[in-house]
Amino acid sequence: MPIKLGELAAQFDCELVGDPDITIDNVAGLHNAGGASLSFLSNPKFRKQLAATSAAAVVLRAEDAADSPTASLISDNPYADYAKMAAVIHPPPRYAPGIAASAVIAATAEISPSAHVAANVSIGDRSTIGDNVYVGPGSVIGPDCKVADDCRLVASVTLVRDVTLGMRGILHPGAVIGSDGFGNAMTPEGWVKVPQLGGVRIGNDVEIGANTTVDCGAIEDTVIEDGVRIDNLCHIGHNVHIGAHTAVAGMSGISGSAIVGKRCMLAGQSGIVGHIRVCDDVVVGGKAVISKDITEPGVYAGTFTAEPVREWNRKVARFRRLEQLIERVNKLEKAGD
Amino acid sequence: MPIKLGELAAQFDCELVGDPDITIDNVAGLHNAGGASLSFLSNPKFRKQLAATSAAAVVLRAEDAADSPTASLISDNPYADYAKMAAVIHPPPRYAPGIAASAVIAATAEISPSAHVAANVSIGDRSTIGDNVYVGPGSVIGPDCKVADDCRLVASVTLVRDVTLGMRGILHPGAVIGSDGFGNAMTPEGWVKVPQLGGVRIGNDVEIGANTTVDCGAIEDTVIEDGVRIDNLCHIGHNVHIGAHTAVAGMSGISGSAIVGKRCMLAGQSGIVGHIRVCDDVVVGGKAVISKDITEPGVYAGTFTAEPVREWNRKVARFRRLEQLIERVNKLEKAGD
Amino acid sequence: MPIKLGELAAQFDCELVGDPDITIDNVAGLHNAGGASLSFLSNPKFRKQLAATSAAAVVLRAEDAADSPTASLISDNPYADYAKMAAVIHPPPRYAPGIAASAVIAATAEISPSAHVAANVSIGDRSTIGDNVYVGPGSVIGPDCKVADDCRLVASVTLVRDVTLGMRGILHPGAVIGSDGFGNAMTPEGWVKVPQLGGVRIGNDVEIGANTTVDCGAIEDTVIEDGVRIDNLCHIGHNVHIGAHTAVAGMSGISGSAIVGKRCMLAGQSGIVGHIRVCDDVVVGGKAVISKDITEPGVYAGTFTAEPVREWNRKVARFRRLEQLIERVNKLEKAGD
Repeated sequence: MPIKLGELAAQFDCELVGDPDITIDNVAGLHNAGGASLSFLSNPKFRKQLAATSAAAVVLRAEDAADSPTASLISDNPYADYAKMAAVIHPPPRYAPGIAASAVIAATAEISPSAHVAANVSIGDRSTIGDNVYVGPGSVIGPDCKVADDCRLVASVTLVRDVTLGMRGILHPGAVIGSDGFGNAMTPEGWVKVPQLGGVRIGNDVEIGANTTVDCGAIEDTVIEDGVRIDNLCHIGHNVHIGAHTAVAGMSGISGSAIVGKRCMLAGQSGIVGHIRVCDDVVVGGKAVISKDITEPGVYAGTFTAEPVREWNRKVARFRRLEQLIERVNKLEKAGD
Repeated sequence: MPIKLGELAAQFDCELVGDPDITIDNVAGLHNAGGASLSFLSNPKFRKQLAATSAAAVVLRAEDAADSPTASLISDNPYADYAKMAAVIHPPPRYAPGIAASAVIAATAEISPSAHVAANVSIGDRSTIGDNVYVGPGSVIGPDCKVADDCRLVASVTLVRDVTLGMRGILHPGAVIGSDGFGNAMTPEGWVKVPQLGGVRIGNDVEIGANTTVDCGAIEDTVIEDGVRIDNLCHIGHNVHIGAHTAVAGMSGISGSAIVGKRCMLAGQSGIVGHIRVCDDVVVGGKAVISKDITEPGVYAGTFTAEPVREWNRKVARFRRLEQLIERVNKLEKAGD
Repeated sequence: MPIKLGELAAQFDCELVGDPDITIDNVAGLHNAGGASLSFLSNPKFRKQLAATSAAAVVLRAEDAADSPTASLISDNPYADYAKMAAVIHPPPRYAPGIAASAVIAATAEISPSAHVAANVSIGDRSTIGDNVYVGPGSVIGPDCKVADDCRLVASVTLVRDVTLGMRGILHPGAVIGSDGFGNAMTPEGWVKVPQLGGVRIGNDVEIGANTTVDCGAIEDTVIEDGVRIDNLCHIGHNVHIGAHTAVAGMSGISGSAIVGKRCMLAGQSGIVGHIRVCDDVVVGGKAVISKDITEPGVYAGTFTAEPVREWNRKVARFRRLEQLIERVNKLEKAGD
């Protein structure tokens, strides 16, 4: 949607250095922006691209404005302001209200007249779909689910049962919410399945990535608070509780009954062991395993990064022979006595 | 389904300490149980919650009965007996037999009259669906599959082709069974796909988690024996063989042609390298990598757990400088000669 | 499809040692091949099975032909030639052209008359489906996608929007292509979603595994070049660029904006950190984390493999006490001065 620079500046409360009548109709990177493009500079690493940009305007910090060859929108948080402006310039597609002929809706389900239910969707008993919700093609919503206003289930999403989704939630394709937790009791005859009877309660403004799974609680609910962001292919076990505004990057797993605080950030392929508690404002490094309660905010890590295999193998060999080295030092100490 | 304590005790052969006429109509945790709730005490960690519980009855070990403020069901395995009782009190939903109008069934498929085939399912040529099977909405069953009696495909499950599923199997949403294995032969012109021609044979009482994938065999079948439990987002490669009653926790991967014994337990995010053999009764720690045959039962591990990043980085730096330390000890030893 | 040995030899330019009139009608492993089976010997590990095989013919290297008890097809690359022959003997199923009655096709979509669109598929606005394409049951193709000739979307595949798929691509069930990247900007009020506006461009002859996700670019496209092979449950972040003929094994993740060269091989559960660059011809070990640019071809590793937990724990304890050992060596050195 084309918009004038002056309007963008006013709407997002940025100082404009440049002509307010310039029309923006797309966003682009600094290096390939065109004459009607909005771009941004947030990471100083890209500062050298600024001088050469052909963008119509750039969202940037005050200290970078002098280097801008084009109009500038001054912001304390250029990335966030760019994100908000981009959503205005490229608004998500709008869908006409209505239920596709191929969708199968239980008689006791309630669908808002402003919702769009796409092709080949099924919606189960007693489930409710709020205003302006988009239920994308191929999605399955089981019984007793509540999808609040303005949610977007992109496509092929499955809510198994007893899932409550707050407002403005975004669920990406293949996400499965409310699947049974991994509850098994050992007996001499083999595993006995422990019935998984709880639901999943998800707050407002939560986004869940493609092919991520969130299990229902065993007895009580699995809980994801407001503003949480979960990337693709993550696993959230039964009875997990994730605090508000925590972000979980791709392929991370949180095992059953773990409690993760607010504003945490879990990097990719990380893991949190079951039944532990992580306080607010914790950053977990890529591939790290959190195996004990964390009570102090901060950054936690536990991974070796890769190096040429010969050097790595030599280091591993030395590590495996540390015992001998310790014994040699013991002997030297004794000899020195 | 409400049931009297006396009936529960009789059905599961537990000694009852308390009034057999009390009616139970739900299960709950010790800390939030109500007057008609059944709870359980298995992990001693929760013993302190027992004294304060408002549950109608608690399943527990004989040695804990004296501390119970309410009726007790005495069990040698309280968790397993609780699980069995919970399945009686909260039986899984029953579905009327029949095939949804929106389901698409190949002319040569055979569906038991007692099976329920839900909305938007498709079932391919020559596939057979046994008695009391539930095929949940959005599931795809390709050609030449056999789903034995009492299986439950919760929703959005895909059986690609040539998949045999034993009795009472439970497949969670997004599970893909029978996808092609990763077989590629290198040539100077690039990879050549190796046709994946085998199927998947799954025993009785197997449960497979949400978004888990089980590849078909390259020539022969991939095999999962009776009673195996696989959690969410696991990857089982082509020609893998998993022994009976093995449990595989979330995000674990078993590479092609690996053979895993009976009653093994793989913790989350673990990995088993291709073509190796793991004997019965092996426990693999979280995120561990098994790269060689294991011939002795026991617990195997290989992971560093996370710690504050500064301390971790110092440890890594020392590890990287081990060579220098070894040289210094060499010199000291020489000096001492 | 039955075929004579002589025809196979001619078609794939292999020297035949044996009777060209023998008919082959299946492929099998050396150990369980029958009188009409073609088998192969590539890995020397299986050489001992050759002498006892009942196969009608074996594809093998010249140096192994003397040990063959049956007809031999001599090849410099027995695995690749076997793969090509297997595709002739067991051709993939053919589907009659046409669109299933239960498929839902947007008015502006263009479907080649030779394509097969299976049950419960939906195809969005302006998308085009090329000649001989197979769109398997339950697949969702969103708007503005191009699926080139001879692609096979096995089943339950989701192309979100703006996905271009080159010729002969194979997408396995549960694969999600074009999902939003994980773009979030922090503000004092929580995360702001960064609109993900790019698409995904995939070259010719690419295969993508079950439940793998490939995110769209943030502004420009995510790019996967010709001949790339991606296994199950992999995560390809936004704006990633994967060079031609690179192979990515199961459960590996490539974070946003990483650039991976041509002919690389990533072993299972490996990870590549965002924004880095990996040159051509790099091999990444299982579970390794690549956190810095790689500019030299070669093998890179960074993983400890599992061992009995007691021994591992002792090694970890020694590692954690390295500082003390260093201090003891310092003291010994001082004492020796």
